[in-house]
Amino acid sequence: MSSQSTPDHLIKEAQTIHPVIDLIRRRWSPRSFSERMLDEERLNTLFEAASWAASSGNEQPWQYVYAFRGTEGFSKLWHCLDDGNRPWTFKASVLIASVKRTIIERNQKVNAWASHDVGMANAHMFLQAVSMGFYCHPMAGFYPDKLRETLGLDEFQEPVCMIAVGYLDDPDKLDEPNRTKEITPRTRKGIDTFARKIT
Amino acid sequence: MSSQSTPDHLIKEAQTIHPVIDLIRRRWSPRSFSERMLDEERLNTLFEAASWAASSGNEQPWQYVYAFRGTEGFSKLWHCLDDGNRPWTFKASVLIASVKRTIIERNQKVNAWASHDVGMANAHMFLQAVSMGFYCHPMAGFYPDKLRETLGLDEFQEPVCMIAVGYLDDPDKLDEPNRTKEITPRTRKGIDTFARKIT
Repeated sequence: MSSQSTPDHLIKEAQTIHPVIDLIRRRWSPRSFSERMLDEERLNTLFEAASWAASSGNEQPWQYVYAFRGTEGFSKLWHCLDDGNRPWTFKASVLIASVKRTIIERNQKVNAWASHDVGMANAHMFLQAVSMGFYCHPMAGFYPDKLRETLGLDEFQEPVCMIAVGYLDDPDKLDEPNRTKEITPRTRKGIDTFARKIT
Repeated sequence: MSSQSTPDHLIKEAQTIHPVIDLIRRRWSPRSFSERMLDEERLNTLFEAASWAASSGNEQPWQYVYAFRGTEGFSKLWHCLDDGNRPWTFKASVLIASVKRTIIERNQKVNAWASHDVGMANAHMFLQAVSMGFYCHPMAGFYPDKLRETLGLDEFQEPVCMIAVGYLDDPDKLDEPNRTKEITPRTRKGIDTFARKIT
């Protein structure tokens, strides 16, 4: 990892059976963020990483609205988060709202792949962040109607998730239950439970 | 890249403005696949890479059904593809059906993030493949009802996309219009068109 990377003891590295790449093994969704701020250049690199995801018909249905900590915009986004996410996200360097465009530009039909394609773009962002030594935490726990109103979304835009971004800090700086969540090892189902070969 | 990697002239590397990681710059969705077959170990590595994606409530709503070229299973999956995708996918080493579980296991409610989270898992697969020198091409062009019947999906499973996987071959081995698509440079919208800062 680069010189910007986090001390290893703060990273919840996945214990994999197969030779999964480091970026994926080291990506996780932390809650303890340090004071250190991100800059525009790093943010733009995340967004460009997102932009090179695949999408159905190269439609690129992803949109992002973001704000840096310490601004009114950050406060507005933070107030769209639910009670579970507010106690730790206030220390994030950046909050991002991930939004999808629900219709296809060229024919105005519903884009059935919008959520899927936004997911691919978001995954690119998260791995790009790990490569630069910081982390993204996607959240489903927010108020979509409030976010819609805050951002002034139109009828063809829909909030997908919110994302907290920042450099890692010590888990002990969190209150419970977030401290325990922060140090609990990551777990996943075995591949035999979700992948099946047909012959 | 590893010793298994593809000759550089076959890779449509993204020309980026910001320092996006090589894996993302080199990921694309090819149509010209060589005779070389993948093995179970590489496939399992893809699936494990997928499994370490984030998901809402760690629900992991992704499922994959796959078949190797030369098997009846491959033929069944291939027949679920539409006319646009059949002329080149028959040479893929593996075809994968990406399926989502639509409800949350612990409470049986609809999982509004299923498509998004499957997208994140799929993006992991595609980047893992690039790291190992082969490529994945996700497709929206398939017959969902036929796929559903072929796979025997239940009411809580839904096809998301199909994926062709294999090592690259020369674009000239493709017929038109696929040959032209294969050599056309990749393009994306500028980040100023989809990312917006609020202050």
